[in-house]
Amino acid sequence: MSRLLYLQSGGPTAVLNRSAQGVIEAARAQGVAVCAAAEGLAGLRAGRLLDLDTASAADIARLGSLPGAAFGSSRDILAPFDDDAAGWQQLAEVLRRFDIGQVLLNGGNGSMETARLLQQLGERFALPLQVVGIPKTIDNDLEGTDFSPGYPSAAKYLASSLREVTLDVRSMAQQRVFIMETMGRHVGWLTAACALAALPGEAAPLLLLPEVAFDEPRLLAAVRQRLAESGCCVIAVSEGLRHADGRFVAQLHADAVYGHEHLGGAGMWLAQRLQQQLGVKAHVALVDCLQRAARHLVSAVDAQQAYRLGQQAVATALAGQGGVMLALQRQQGNAGTDWQLSPLPLAAVANRERALPADFIAADGLSVTPAFDAYLRPLLQGEQPLAFADGLPDLRCPAWPPLLP
Amino acid sequence: MSRLLYLQSGGPTAVLNRSAQGVIEAARAQGVAVCAAAEGLAGLRAGRLLDLDTASAADIARLGSLPGAAFGSSRDILAPFDDDAAGWQQLAEVLRRFDIGQVLLNGGNGSMETARLLQQLGERFALPLQVVGIPKTIDNDLEGTDFSPGYPSAAKYLASSLREVTLDVRSMAQQRVFIMETMGRHVGWLTAACALAALPGEAAPLLLLPEVAFDEPRLLAAVRQRLAESGCCVIAVSEGLRHADGRFVAQLHADAVYGHEHLGGAGMWLAQRLQQQLGVKAHVALVDCLQRAARHLVSAVDAQQAYRLGQQAVATALAGQGGVMLALQRQQGNAGTDWQLSPLPLAAVANRERALPADFIAADGLSVTPAFDAYLRPLLQGEQPLAFADGLPDLRCPAWPPLLP
Repeated sequence: MSRLLYLQSGGPTAVLNRSAQGVIEAARAQGVAVCAAAEGLAGLRAGRLLDLDTASAADIARLGSLPGAAFGSSRDILAPFDDDAAGWQQLAEVLRRFDIGQVLLNGGNGSMETARLLQQLGERFALPLQVVGIPKTIDNDLEGTDFSPGYPSAAKYLASSLREVTLDVRSMAQQRVFIMETMGRHVGWLTAACALAALPGEAAPLLLLPEVAFDEPRLLAAVRQRLAESGCCVIAVSEGLRHADGRFVAQLHADAVYGHEHLGGAGMWLAQRLQQQLGVKAHVALVDCLQRAARHLVSAVDAQQAYRLGQQAVATALAGQGGVMLALQRQQGNAGTDWQLSPLPLAAVANRERALPADFIAADGLSVTPAFDAYLRPLLQGEQPLAFADGLPDLRCPAWPPLLP
Repeated sequence: MSRLLYLQSGGPTAVLNRSAQGVIEAARAQGVAVCAAAEGLAGLRAGRLLDLDTASAADIARLGSLPGAAFGSSRDILAPFDDDAAGWQQLAEVLRRFDIGQVLLNGGNGSMETARLLQQLGERFALPLQVVGIPKTIDNDLEGTDFSPGYPSAAKYLASSLREVTLDVRSMAQQRVFIMETMGRHVGWLTAACALAALPGEAAPLLLLPEVAFDEPRLLAAVRQRLAESGCCVIAVSEGLRHADGRFVAQLHADAVYGHEHLGGAGMWLAQRLQQQLGVKAHVALVDCLQRAARHLVSAVDAQQAYRLGQQAVATALAGQGGVMLALQRQQGNAGTDWQLSPLPLAAVANRERALPADFIAADGLSVTPAFDAYLRPLLQGEQPLAFADGLPDLRCPAWPPLLP
């Protein structure tokens, strides 16, 4: 009987390993041999496959509660056959050698293109291969799914942290601005989530979304008003904030931020502008990867759906329904919000990018609509207890599974 | 009967309001009228005193669980009489007008100098005034006390966050460096706490402390070794990292970081150096005020001792023992570690600064000794449950108490 291969691709999230747990436990329940590519596609190319059948049930459950990518990930992608025939040949040999019948690829929109090509690869090389995509990205930019696992937990972390710090910021007699820079280079889902940091009845943080060209006069007017009203102002800015001509503000000022777009810089650039234009001190927080690793603020809904997607992907692949990504569809029932899983053709999601819809962005361009609040709120529900050991989170990792011979 | 005044001074911490709760509840138990200066010394000068006797017990308990400074704070300090005779006169009139018999000042080493001068002010103007200092600072640089409330929770936040993100960083196939910049401009207590992010048996993050002059060749050698061993390297750097000549690296490169020392910049500067010297990508996190506002990762020991200090300060002041700060002294008993509270003359702590002791810094200058681990570990013990409402921390604030007429 063939083997099922699980593969993590792209940046980790706080619940990526929950999907891995779902995959492994479902495969075991079906009596299917299961392995994972070490460090994603890079490891698969090299034939470095981890034998998960040797791992204890307790280790698999523990892995599922850890941030990061338990088996390693990479940003390696598969090129079309015409551009990399040798690479396809090499992959086909690995898949044949290890008798892989199903590939479950857990990743974002770029990874779904790799999944689509892997399905083609199976057909081209006459392998009995079913490839199923499991969505994952904190950016929430995958098309066709209500949300992508990883996003709700990152949103919960950002909104919670900003809510806490708002009490700090407004404690000081002196006027002050606090700026939090979020990830999301091309889409504003993470920045928009910061709007929910506001306590009931309070002004929401000002949002600078990548979907809205930076309008400095409008922002300065809004900041002046907040300072006049309350003596402080909280702003959430996307690392991908752009000028009207489309250039990233961080990119424009690359020298000043050391030429590392991925380091962010939009927040510090903005702080400088506010200092220059309003003479107000601004504090800047740049949480970077903390926002996708914050296991201690995971959303229970996120963790549950990540697990279900992993489980269902096994059933879908074993049923011979390859070439699809499983998507979440929102169901409003008497018991509240729930999600239904349904397959979408990989071609419908691969390499596409879902921006924040226009009806989620308020007319002032600096806030979100009630429709966005109604969208996000159900995703933040519930907490996942985190075990502490000797005062700090217990994140001990099980031993790395052995490679398949 | 006279009134007791509580005053918050300097930057907030995650447990500052726990001391406020201790003060208010102890004063009530003693039947003493209690008020708080709105926005610290600035409010006191203006005679803006909040009447806490009108607040419900439930509101006081809720305030105690919130980050920030519940009654407002400021960086305003009291100058010596010879420099500000009019200011002293003004303060004396306010204290007399509101019949203030005790002042409990909750702050750091600069604030303790203000406390010392307020005690002098009472004597100079023949006021029956007892001034008691309650320690508070995430920097942990107050002399004479085992730790300062606020530090353990900030340390727990930093070490926990860095432990989580380490799993993320090492997940990626590609070599990478992660840099976390911490507060602590002159002392390395917060940066040192990041050493505890390491899981048992794993390499600790490299530490760049303000007490140790930056030695680039030494750091580069250590980073190369970590990359060779594990493919990734985690570094904690103080915002106050200095060159051998004493200049701050962030200050030196002020233009590049927009001339705002308080924005940090040491982390980004370091990322640029590593890129230039090793050609390795570095991610940078700058958590800024999040590290002192993180109610969701508060240390139970920190919260408990903050509360006890507030309570005991009331008893000390009512006993007529003014001119002191209450200090924590570590007690090792069969039941584990506990703390004894004892008064220190304000003159012994005011304006002094406790750096990381030499025996807490390892010979390589990039790590801490087991003695530091033994010091910090007991401070991190225990968590404080945080209530969530609709998916986010429930940080609703009670109504602002009315001003005394």
